[in-house]
Amino acid sequence: MSNSASVPTLLSRIAGPADVKALAPEQLPQLAQEIRDELIEVTSRNGGHVGPNLGVVELTIALHRVFNTPDDQFVFDVAHQGYVHKLLTGRGGDFFAKLRKTGGASGFLYRSESPHDAFGAGHAGTALSAALGMATARDLRNSPEHVIAVCGDAAFTCGVTLEALNNVVASTKRLIVILNDNEWSIAKNVGAIASYLNKLSTNPTYNKMHHDVESFFKSFPAGVEMNRVYNKWKRETKDFFVESSLFEKFGLRYLGPVDGHNLDALVKNLEFAKHCDVPVLIHVQTKKGKGLDAALAHPEKFHGASPFDPETGESVKAIPGTPPNYQDVFGSALSRFARANPKVLGITGAMPSGTGLSQLAREVPAQFFDVGIAEEHAVLFAAGLATKGFRPVCAIYSTFLQRAYDMVIHDVALQNLPVTFCMDRAGLSPNDGPTHHGLFDVSYLRCVPNATVMQPKDEDELVDMLHTSLHLPGPGFIRYPRGAGTGAPVKHEPALIPVGHAETLKVGTNIIIWALGSMVPDALKLAQRLEREEHISVGVVNARFVKPLDRTLLLSQAAVVPLIVTMEDNVLAGGFGSAVLEALQEAHCPTPVERIGWPDKFVEHGSSVEILRANYGLAPDDIFARVSARWRSLQSDHQPTADVR
Amino acid sequence: MSNSASVPTLLSRIAGPADVKALAPEQLPQLAQEIRDELIEVTSRNGGHVGPNLGVVELTIALHRVFNTPDDQFVFDVAHQGYVHKLLTGRGGDFFAKLRKTGGASGFLYRSESPHDAFGAGHAGTALSAALGMATARDLRNSPEHVIAVCGDAAFTCGVTLEALNNVVASTKRLIVILNDNEWSIAKNVGAIASYLNKLSTNPTYNKMHHDVESFFKSFPAGVEMNRVYNKWKRETKDFFVESSLFEKFGLRYLGPVDGHNLDALVKNLEFAKHCDVPVLIHVQTKKGKGLDAALAHPEKFHGASPFDPETGESVKAIPGTPPNYQDVFGSALSRFARANPKVLGITGAMPSGTGLSQLAREVPAQFFDVGIAEEHAVLFAAGLATKGFRPVCAIYSTFLQRAYDMVIHDVALQNLPVTFCMDRAGLSPNDGPTHHGLFDVSYLRCVPNATVMQPKDEDELVDMLHTSLHLPGPGFIRYPRGAGTGAPVKHEPALIPVGHAETLKVGTNIIIWALGSMVPDALKLAQRLEREEHISVGVVNARFVKPLDRTLLLSQAAVVPLIVTMEDNVLAGGFGSAVLEALQEAHCPTPVERIGWPDKFVEHGSSVEILRANYGLAPDDIFARVSARWRSLQSDHQPTADVR
Repeated sequence: MSNSASVPTLLSRIAGPADVKALAPEQLPQLAQEIRDELIEVTSRNGGHVGPNLGVVELTIALHRVFNTPDDQFVFDVAHQGYVHKLLTGRGGDFFAKLRKTGGASGFLYRSESPHDAFGAGHAGTALSAALGMATARDLRNSPEHVIAVCGDAAFTCGVTLEALNNVVASTKRLIVILNDNEWSIAKNVGAIASYLNKLSTNPTYNKMHHDVESFFKSFPAGVEMNRVYNKWKRETKDFFVESSLFEKFGLRYLGPVDGHNLDALVKNLEFAKHCDVPVLIHVQTKKGKGLDAALAHPEKFHGASPFDPETGESVKAIPGTPPNYQDVFGSALSRFARANPKVLGITGAMPSGTGLSQLAREVPAQFFDVGIAEEHAVLFAAGLATKGFRPVCAIYSTFLQRAYDMVIHDVALQNLPVTFCMDRAGLSPNDGPTHHGLFDVSYLRCVPNATVMQPKDEDELVDMLHTSLHLPGPGFIRYPRGAGTGAPVKHEPALIPVGHAETLKVGTNIIIWALGSMVPDALKLAQRLEREEHISVGVVNARFVKPLDRTLLLSQAAVVPLIVTMEDNVLAGGFGSAVLEALQEAHCPTPVERIGWPDKFVEHGSSVEILRANYGLAPDDIFARVSARWRSLQSDHQPTADVR
Repeated sequence: MSNSASVPTLLSRIAGPADVKALAPEQLPQLAQEIRDELIEVTSRNGGHVGPNLGVVELTIALHRVFNTPDDQFVFDVAHQGYVHKLLTGRGGDFFAKLRKTGGASGFLYRSESPHDAFGAGHAGTALSAALGMATARDLRNSPEHVIAVCGDAAFTCGVTLEALNNVVASTKRLIVILNDNEWSIAKNVGAIASYLNKLSTNPTYNKMHHDVESFFKSFPAGVEMNRVYNKWKRETKDFFVESSLFEKFGLRYLGPVDGHNLDALVKNLEFAKHCDVPVLIHVQTKKGKGLDAALAHPEKFHGASPFDPETGESVKAIPGTPPNYQDVFGSALSRFARANPKVLGITGAMPSGTGLSQLAREVPAQFFDVGIAEEHAVLFAAGLATKGFRPVCAIYSTFLQRAYDMVIHDVALQNLPVTFCMDRAGLSPNDGPTHHGLFDVSYLRCVPNATVMQPKDEDELVDMLHTSLHLPGPGFIRYPRGAGTGAPVKHEPALIPVGHAETLKVGTNIIIWALGSMVPDALKLAQRLEREEHISVGVVNARFVKPLDRTLLLSQAAVVPLIVTMEDNVLAGGFGSAVLEALQEAHCPTPVERIGWPDKFVEHGSSVEILRANYGLAPDDIFARVSARWRSLQSDHQPTADVR
């Protein structure tokens, strides 16, 4: 670990995979060390997935020693283990130094970022399935390249990985699956497969066997007739364990466990797999956070870390006075409600910390459930609990709830079961980028019958909404943004919010701004500026409910005010503003509307919410200019004002 | 099998599960026969899932002999195996005779239909997960009831079932899983787990073992200290196979295979499972279609059959002159395109027949893929294929695409991969009901960047759209309704439709109706009637593209016409009409709009599209009344016409 600015001698000379291959084997440990230094240096400044990447340094070097990208394809699951791959494929230096910042390397992999990125991903569990598609395409074209899926053990808690596993043998005879087993997803792994992997790793029969295969292979030159070698070895060891392993039942040849920090063993196993005529799974054991003591000690914290001190591992202190995060306010409230009511349960898909559920897990563990990265199961499991009178709360990021969309419609909403969905990261997740922004949920939930969809203006209202949702007869969805709240003090006793009632924050006679949740503070500022600079009267409504929308208030205002403005942190297509348009149309109300929200594009990653908003014409100045221009054009159409009917 | 109207002596006396228990064991075969007669009688008239239900007659009787619903809970996967359960829980007679018809029994299970329906479902794979939620709730409450998940073997191709399987042991010590293995999902089952189950069933070691356990248990009175019995047996048989079975690796005790038509064996195994202190999976082998020769011979056809002759199994002939189904026109076109272009591939999730892909499977098998009921994998697999220059076509019903929503956004659209989605059953699936209607896809796709979303007005345009989508640079979504097309002849050579261009079918100066796909014929009739009865000039536009919407045409019309009407077979919330409102708002165009579409409700099942439309105010008369009233009110507001600004 080093903070020094000295240029890494080896890493700086790596312009692409060929340079990795050109190194002598004895230079590789130094390369690995330099990569670890660089990972720690950059992530300690920028934040990022330091733990997972420290674990795959040797594995990624070995992959680039044995295979040739972009001819061969690596499909990294989640792709947050892709930093080392970036450093080895021409994306180091300044580009990597700006990791997760505007103009720098993405925190995930993108086909558009490099030809060495065969498939992008920010959600877990997709690699095996996508790799099977690629392998099948290769087979159809009769081309020679290799397709290698690199999956964390946590990917095997995802349904789609298991769907793919069931299809491997039917799809191809040539596929290499790396199971990167670090025993952690984001939190400590859960479930039967995790226990099984642990058993494989600790079983003495296996370990002996592994030793046998190592020494056996040592007697043969690498890459030569490996199938024959393997078959001979199988005959000799008569190993029943391998035959009966979980992965062999799915038709994959199981190799391992392999020490994921032993370059020699990794290369040998990859070379062997390269010559197999059946799909192969290599079980590689790595240490998440290897090379950073703090990360080894706190794997969850250092999975995706905010900036930290590389010496001590301490997080860089938030600027004094920064309000608590929404997730923490939520987590604390849920824990409080659960202590008071044994029917209140919290469910997470492997993200107790990110969602704020850690507090519930600590304080009321019997009412806390981590089901692994398995959003579909999480929602169905909640639905089952709800049929028996419980009040489950699924804490799932906005973008990850897409995974359970069918369960939201078909299982929860159709049966009108009282499941509460707490959707953090609604709006932008700026450093993460398009795979993590929560810009679609208003649109995809607004069409679901029986759904109550809300967004609080501040963290106090978040607690009220949680309380309210726990009293709904059917499903409640609460979306809120990533990061710090507004600093609003949370009341001691939560209030029930009347369902479908918006809150007038400021009256006005010329324009009324209907703002959803996180846009309320912006709306208040906008109103003040419009009043100051345009000399008009501007009201602000905290919409609170996307659904049911407060039509009564909206229509009463639209009847007398010349312009309604909507503001939301969601795409405009089908979003909150669209709901306002629909309500006005249904009432045959012709009042003009100006809608502020995200355009019909995937939004890239960037250094901050402010920068990204500015890139899409959503900076405060842009919004002010648009609304005032609209106001002026209405004025010139209709002298003097008020009756636009 | 019988067509006679004679009252079944036993079945007619079954008012609920208590009556099933009251029968003497020797009466049960007669009950089973009467149930089969009734199933065949009703489904031959009404259509329905005859095959799956004929297979579970004895199993369902056994379940009701051993357990007590509604105290105990059965969670039937997909719930199309629930007919027998309905007959045994007070839903026979006239109610069952109207199966899948307005006012009759649903073809699936619903909590709202009976307290004996613990959890509803029309999509596959949800039972294990929901049952785990219920079992956990029971454990939290310390109550004694049993939770039994009844899953088809096909459920184990669904990711969510496997996610649940991974969570069983962590969640509860008491759960009974019935694996109803009939070797079929809708089509013949695929994948590694299906092969594995087949191996279990045919392996001589297993069969001997099964015999052993049978005779072993015979020596003990049922229900007494069964755990001790089981453990003793395990010690004695020292069975390694059971220990190493796939399900044992997930922590479930494996029992079976059990003959699913042997009531005695079923009851014995269920009794044993009832007393186990670990989760148990009972592998039950059944014959899909047992009791109907035609169904045994053609399991796929009789999975969900249209009305048929119970003697011959022949489908009731369509009324002469009925146009071909959309699915068949699609299937034929895809097969033609695939023959001409080896890059064109077809992918289905276990529905080659329902989607129309059977023809491709027959004619170009190398370009056809059935991945099992695994929509997430289907879409990701397609995405992988698309990265290598192929043009995959995923044929997935509108409602089932909800399962892969995240893959649509995160994997296909974000990477702008050219995957085509052919979404049959968009709009109503009247006999199936709310789990199968495709009323949300316009809304949930409209917010997805890079998506091109279309709906053809007839089957000829469907082929053009498929052809067009196969030339798009990114994802294309084509939705079309269930059943017969309009009879439009399909051109010999398909045409490329200019993307984002609507088609003016009829000019008009007072109202323009923008109709989406299947609503075009209705729109034309509505226009004629309005012209006839209101003496106005009404134009009709075939929208073709939901996205990109033809704004140029829309705005040019809206500038001169006093009223725009939209018609769609989707919910109004966020739907096509909403897109029109958004486009007009963005252009600051005040032209009024009247939107026709489905309200914010789940629509029940019913005998026909016409009946269901009438129930929701969408009959042609209702629509005419609404549009003409709107027209008249605009007229009275604005004498004489045209300028409503």
